[in-house]
Amino acid sequence: MFAFEPIGVIHSPFTDPGHTPIQPFRSQAEGLVEVWPQYLRGLQGLEGFSHLLLLYLFHLSAPGYELSVTPFLDDQATGLFATRYPRRPNNLGLSVVQLLALEGCCLRVGGIDILDGTPLLDLKPHIPRFDCPSGTRIGWLEGRV
Amino acid sequence: MFAFEPIGVIHSPFTDPGHTPIQPFRSQAEGLVEVWPQYLRGLQGLEGFSHLLLLYLFHLSAPGYELSVTPFLDDQATGLFATRYPRRPNNLGLSVVQLLALEGCCLRVGGIDILDGTPLLDLKPHIPRFDCPSGTRIGWLEGRV
Repeated sequence: MFAFEPIGVIHSPFTDPGHTPIQPFRSQAEGLVEVWPQYLRGLQGLEGFSHLLLLYLFHLSAPGYELSVTPFLDDQATGLFATRYPRRPNNLGLSVVQLLALEGCCLRVGGIDILDGTPLLDLKPHIPRFDCPSGTRIGWLEGRV
Repeated sequence: MFAFEPIGVIHSPFTDPGHTPIQPFRSQAEGLVEVWPQYLRGLQGLEGFSHLLLLYLFHLSAPGYELSVTPFLDDQATGLFATRYPRRPNNLGLSVVQLLALEGCCLRVGGIDILDGTPLLDLKPHIPRFDCPSGTRIGWLEGRV
């Protein structure tokens, strides 16, 4: 068992879990990633990156999870870990967002698909050489995104 | 404060934190992601995907962190959150690996850069449409990876 403390909070226009954009149809919505002031120095140099990886908690997911789910983009059940479904063990979420501006401890970001008030656990620079392999296949999502 | 439980463990050839491949120079090493048996049904459909996102704990990182670090690939200090440095608040790690085979609860993966015995917290399918935006800039890493 490991204990994690948020390093900030994510603000977005999305307050209703039923009306948050599903990732493939990402909105152009802007959001604000507020990092707690004690981490300010850790943000230096981030402005050189166009995109960030946000790691966060799906804090409004109902407790528990099903190991077999029918994704929004499919009509057949599939394994939970073959989806990005939010209700999962550890409720960890991951999104790539565009960094629009770094203003003190606040990061204005674009293309956000995250609920307002979401606890931020980590942020990392998005590095295509690490994060974007070539020759990918996407299983049940083929032709759907 | 949030409590997380591992959903499995990552086996790899790398047992020495001083000799684990740095991401940009990824080895072709193979590893084995062992998911606890109770999650078996959640893996269904994963075999259709060529690449996975592994979320894990940097369990051998020394306690604490510095907000300003000098990355291996640079000679200038930069903010911790502008790096993928393992010693960080919440010690969360993220790697994209290639899925070579799904054998029961074990996933054979390629291109691994993770220490042997690392606790697995989540795995998700890698989906280029979500995870690989175009028009990226990579700050201090430009020309280095």
